[in-house]
Amino acid sequence: MAINVRDTRIAVMGAGAVGSYFGGMFARGGARVTLIGRPAHVDAIRASKLFLDTVTFQERIAIDASNEVSAVRDAQFVLLCVKTLDTEKAAQALAPCLSPGAILISMQNGVDNVARIRAATGIDALPAVVYIAAALPEPGHVKHSGRGELIFGEYANPASGRTKAIPNRPEIVAELCATAGIPCRVSPYIEADQWTKMLMNCAGNAVTAIAQTSFAHAARNLQSREVMRAVIDECVAVARASGVQLPDVDWTEKGVKNAESLGEATSSTAQDIARGKLTEIDSLNGYIVRRGKELGLPVPVNLTLYALVKLIEESAAKRARPVTGSA
Amino acid sequence: MAINVRDTRIAVMGAGAVGSYFGGMFARGGARVTLIGRPAHVDAIRASKLFLDTVTFQERIAIDASNEVSAVRDAQFVLLCVKTLDTEKAAQALAPCLSPGAILISMQNGVDNVARIRAATGIDALPAVVYIAAALPEPGHVKHSGRGELIFGEYANPASGRTKAIPNRPEIVAELCATAGIPCRVSPYIEADQWTKMLMNCAGNAVTAIAQTSFAHAARNLQSREVMRAVIDECVAVARASGVQLPDVDWTEKGVKNAESLGEATSSTAQDIARGKLTEIDSLNGYIVRRGKELGLPVPVNLTLYALVKLIEESAAKRARPVTGSA
Repeated sequence: MAINVRDTRIAVMGAGAVGSYFGGMFARGGARVTLIGRPAHVDAIRASKLFLDTVTFQERIAIDASNEVSAVRDAQFVLLCVKTLDTEKAAQALAPCLSPGAILISMQNGVDNVARIRAATGIDALPAVVYIAAALPEPGHVKHSGRGELIFGEYANPASGRTKAIPNRPEIVAELCATAGIPCRVSPYIEADQWTKMLMNCAGNAVTAIAQTSFAHAARNLQSREVMRAVIDECVAVARASGVQLPDVDWTEKGVKNAESLGEATSSTAQDIARGKLTEIDSLNGYIVRRGKELGLPVPVNLTLYALVKLIEESAAKRARPVTGSA
Repeated sequence: MAINVRDTRIAVMGAGAVGSYFGGMFARGGARVTLIGRPAHVDAIRASKLFLDTVTFQERIAIDASNEVSAVRDAQFVLLCVKTLDTEKAAQALAPCLSPGAILISMQNGVDNVARIRAATGIDALPAVVYIAAALPEPGHVKHSGRGELIFGEYANPASGRTKAIPNRPEIVAELCATAGIPCRVSPYIEADQWTKMLMNCAGNAVTAIAQTSFAHAARNLQSREVMRAVIDECVAVARASGVQLPDVDWTEKGVKNAESLGEATSSTAQDIARGKLTEIDSLNGYIVRRGKELGLPVPVNLTLYALVKLIEESAAKRARPVTGSA
């Protein structure tokens, strides 16, 4: 199946920074893209197009935008970019509208979205791993500050009874990306690739969120560096015990180096906390805690980080209260 | 030795909320007390006395105040109330001024101040455990919101070569407190009493500081409650491995109940963080981390809490920086 981005119909469900960036890139390549997102973002795009403010170009992109899930109708590809908090809700909302033969791609953090989508709707989504630094500083404006590549692949051990309606999905989607100029690759080990990003997220997101600081600072501080290493050790143990074929590399070293390389950027989790929003922590350190319990593996550092982010989420609303001191 | 508070000469080194409260109580009982503290506090006291605003009375107390360490000269009792960050510095500053026969009492958090004072100055301080909820809402004004009792005792295993110049120190100081109406007791197991408070501090202070919330909230949240229990388990293991004769009670249960009983109050660590000040974390979870390493005991939850508080202390100054996002 030869595919070209020109006139391909694509919908982005959950057009925040990541979804709007990739939707915008596909539209720039000639696809007919609809971004489904929040009213303020949709209104801004309808009024003044999508402003793609990237490290290599700034451009206003003509693109459709909608508040309605029904806009996924007719799309050949649907990029699911909602936060992992909303995976089931979004999948259930779009399921009745999804064209037969459409490919639903989970562009989300974490390692269990495809399973959750299947459990909620029966739909077999294609897993993708996304590496990008991007933000929405204001409605209609995507600020891209680094990377922007994708990895696609089918799981080696699909759930039993699962049928794939479309063969070669990763190759089809990769070809689409290639014609749109989006760097990507097809991986025979997508589960390991998802876990690779998961390790980095688990190591850096909660720590930077809790301290409201940058990845580089968290990696530089001797104590938090040790915590990041301990998180990764716990996550690698959980991954291996779950049967994930992680390459045999020094993950703790890799994790710290990765955080250093991210410099003064901070995590999406840190941004959520700063804005008083719920985070994806249940899909990151929280997932490790649940799996650790199932597997009988102790994950005390992940537990601590998870608990603190949950407590901070809860207490954000209570910050204004007067407090009395205790020695 | 019969002692009465009337005309007893007492100095308080480090007159924050705790030192000013007890100094004020002794002065109210008739002692000649000098509070040594920060200029704004000293100025306020010189101008309008010390305002003791307690749960049972409000009263302006006539009391001396000074910025100078030399004001400990002639004191028969010196209450050391500086933060544990300043233990050595304060002990070294007061050592040349201390009267022969004066009793130096460490009213500080943590379990190693007496050893640190001895290492820095050769002075054998008397350990005290302080239970109080108090704050300094403004210079010259002590807001007391609960408790206010003291425990004194000599260590069962004093450092080798140590000589006690004064026998029955705990009893003398307890008698002094009794005549001033300050609830106190003498403990034959002061080390265990210090560790009891240490367990509570390690369980609650960092968590409430990191989430900027109350003890009760931290104890109520299911995840952070689990973290508090894990902290206590680690601390009890370190205490027992250090030879501390902790009573055989359910410390995790006791710790959670204690946090619940503290209600909407928050910790001194949380207050320090809120004010952008350095905390005493090196003497709390940080001490457990150091002892755990020396003893070969894993203390991952204490390590994580310690690291996060250190990182927050460091990052507080950097909060104003703009940050870019990363998925």
